[in-house]
Amino acid sequence: MIKEFLLKYKLWVTKPESALVISFAIVILAGAILLTLPISSTPGNSTSFLDALFTSTSATCVTGLIVFDTGTHFSIFGQVVILTLIQLGGLGIMTFTAIFVWLSKKAYSVQTHYTIQDTFGGDIEKLSIENLLKFIVSATFTIEGLGAAILFFKLKEIYPTGKALYSAIFHSISAFCNAGFSIYSDSLIQFRQSWITLTTIMLLIIFGGLGYPVLFELREKILGKRKKTSFHTKLVLATTLSLIFGGAFFIWLGDHSLTILDSLFQSVTTRTAGFNSVDIGKLPSSSLFIMIMLMFIGGSPGSCAGGIKTTTFSGYLILVKDWFFGEHRKRLFERKLTQETKDKIKSVITLAFSTVVVSFTILLFSEQAIITTYREAFRNLLFEVVSAFGTVGLSTGITSNLSNVGKLVIIIDMFFGRVGPLAIVTSLLFGRRKKKKIDYPEQKIMIG
Amino acid sequence: MIKEFLLKYKLWVTKPESALVISFAIVILAGAILLTLPISSTPGNSTSFLDALFTSTSATCVTGLIVFDTGTHFSIFGQVVILTLIQLGGLGIMTFTAIFVWLSKKAYSVQTHYTIQDTFGGDIEKLSIENLLKFIVSATFTIEGLGAAILFFKLKEIYPTGKALYSAIFHSISAFCNAGFSIYSDSLIQFRQSWITLTTIMLLIIFGGLGYPVLFELREKILGKRKKTSFHTKLVLATTLSLIFGGAFFIWLGDHSLTILDSLFQSVTTRTAGFNSVDIGKLPSSSLFIMIMLMFIGGSPGSCAGGIKTTTFSGYLILVKDWFFGEHRKRLFERKLTQETKDKIKSVITLAFSTVVVSFTILLFSEQAIITTYREAFRNLLFEVVSAFGTVGLSTGITSNLSNVGKLVIIIDMFFGRVGPLAIVTSLLFGRRKKKKIDYPEQKIMIG
Ligand SMILES: [K+]
Ligand SMILES: [K+]
Repeated sequence: MIKEFLLKYKLWVTKPESALVISFAIVILAGAILLTLPISSTPGNSTSFLDALFTSTSATCVTGLIVFDTGTHFSIFGQVVILTLIQLGGLGIMTFTAIFVWLSKKAYSVQTHYTIQDTFGGDIEKLSIENLLKFIVSATFTIEGLGAAILFFKLKEIYPTGKALYSAIFHSISAFCNAGFSIYSDSLIQFRQSWITLTTIMLLIIFGGLGYPVLFELREKILGKRKKTSFHTKLVLATTLSLIFGGAFFIWLGDHSLTILDSLFQSVTTRTAGFNSVDIGKLPSSSLFIMIMLMFIGGSPGSCAGGIKTTTFSGYLILVKDWFFGEHRKRLFERKLTQETKDKIKSVITLAFSTVVVSFTILLFSEQAIITTYREAFRNLLFEVVSAFGTVGLSTGITSNLSNVGKLVIIIDMFFGRVGPLAIVTSLLFGRRKKKKIDYPEQKIMIG
Repeated sequence: MIKEFLLKYKLWVTKPESALVISFAIVILAGAILLTLPISSTPGNSTSFLDALFTSTSATCVTGLIVFDTGTHFSIFGQVVILTLIQLGGLGIMTFTAIFVWLSKKAYSVQTHYTIQDTFGGDIEKLSIENLLKFIVSATFTIEGLGAAILFFKLKEIYPTGKALYSAIFHSISAFCNAGFSIYSDSLIQFRQSWITLTTIMLLIIFGGLGYPVLFELREKILGKRKKTSFHTKLVLATTLSLIFGGAFFIWLGDHSLTILDSLFQSVTTRTAGFNSVDIGKLPSSSLFIMIMLMFIGGSPGSCAGGIKTTTFSGYLILVKDWFFGEHRKRLFERKLTQETKDKIKSVITLAFSTVVVSFTILLFSEQAIITTYREAFRNLLFEVVSAFGTVGLSTGITSNLSNVGKLVIIIDMFFGRVGPLAIVTSLLFGRRKKKKIDYPEQKIMIG
């Protein structure tokens, strides 16, 4: 049925990236209108359309930057709207990625002279689009359910049952979708000592950031249906682990007062989730610059994570190695990158970098209030832009002081960071499909 | 004779980049030893080896970053040492570039199946290496002489003849070599009102930054020997003019109190010379970030300028256009970039960017004193690193407060920014020469 729908309606097949942009825009606008309603705010508070649009974009694009404190400014109704936007945004991204890959596979298989490579496990590529989407939805709710259960038992120790349950569900969804919204004003600083809570949140973030192809392969392995690990999974796991531990080390190096748990948590959350267990504004510039780089890289493709993606990053390292040392047959996991993959890597990085530079330049001109108020305004504005583009949501605390121009720039960054690279990459994938010629075995990896 | 020397000694032919690195290292070390001598400092002052090494590297690499005020800390002897290092460094870069290009041409012509493209005007490629080097030396002294003469007549109005002559020669050499050293503590702020002085300095900087192939072509045109403008010259002039006027506009946009002359002067000087007619530390973050980008781009190849070079920058823009819109026959000046050129562009930019990021990260950890003292330490340190790597020499005023680790990082940045990209690019050029196959008419441009 979904298959028929997809193949029937021209929009999805010829311009899936337009479908993505339009769907997200509609959800964001609907969310903004709901959040502007008086019922969404707590008594005595009201939300202007720009601020509602900011919050709705932040939720739908699973970013987590906030101009109002979620727990005190918004009513339970408003919070449920936000939580729904997060869940729709998170599932939306995974679903669209799946549809894109499935469509491109479909398109490829029409050209009989073109042998598609085993991008993921192979098993997942044999799934029908219905079963693929079913897997995504069931995996999401299973993991979120498990996370919420563990969080509930910890939260019950300090809150009444109803409140603990609501908080557990809210934070589990927000963590798995890598949204970073919290109903607590200080994010998760109050749980700094609770390693069970922080570890649960960390695992939710990590699973939410691995992407559905890796989750599918992990399930196959657990069920004993599969033995060989795919290239994609190897690349994602190797890059993710290196970034988590490398990031934690350098963040700690900047501020020795951080515990191992804080450093690890901040490293995991920085790559896209956006929770914090320490006050970000008080971290030293060294740790913040490491975090800026981690936020730019982000999570893995096919997940709710933002940034240029782990595979793009490691693919770029392979490219750089090739430029300096030449291309040889013996290489990472003994595969070569296809020309198409290389083009995508370069396009995504260039696009991401240009967006950050242009947005940052505009903010340096528009945010005079922040520049005169804050000691390290230059650093804080750069942090804010990268956080928005990487849909991370961490902030040094300047978000609510942004001018209207600044808020609009950040809204565009969040939207672009969420749908932009993927849409661009997809249009490249479609635009170039017919020109491809293959003369040696190559490896295609999933980018953006 | 020079030709025989070059072809006779293996070092120059097989490893010219090692010859470059070794020559510069020897000149820098000799300069550092001379500057450590008591005779180099004014009475009551002394120079440690690290500070002497810093000054010598800064002069030889025509950067202009200073830990001591050149006019008051160093004696006339010390100043003449610095001026000699500047002249050697400036001529050295142009000479080495010429030798590299000449050698690569030589090497190419051995392969008879490979038709070398008309990289520059064509006429300059027919020159023998002796005549090429003679042209470089005579062009340098002619332009520096003319500049010194004009400056002398202006300076005579305020200083006694001897002092005016010395100052005119010092600043003319420093401007043409894009070194940015001044014997005045406030650089050229005292000449802010004198448009003749600032325009003379600007023209010296611009001519010094165009590179010898363009200077040669301009001479041929003036002498009526040539009509057609080469691809290289078109690209250099178009990029240079766009950067000068675009840069001036955005610098002014950040600070409306700047005059047109100030904005133009700062735009010209920022791309590599490093003089200033206004206090850099007092400019707003917006103007400073525009300057950071201009410093990173730098001047044109075959000149004393630093940075990734104008041709690399415009070549990158062409590449980006290709990634997004595909490669078509109709393009900039109707030429295509060769694969070799593309590889060089990507290598130079990646290398430059990585150097800046790594150095900046180290400084964020090592410069605690600056971070606690300055309001915008993050911005100032980034500015300092890019200024050192682009061999620009502008500073927000933090240079003398750098820790020893910081000074070493900046010394390495200056050296690497000067010899690094060129050496790397040359080794790539040599390493890949034999692998090249050509199947369509392509355009080679000079990079790094
Ligand atoms: K987030
Ligand atoms: K300079």
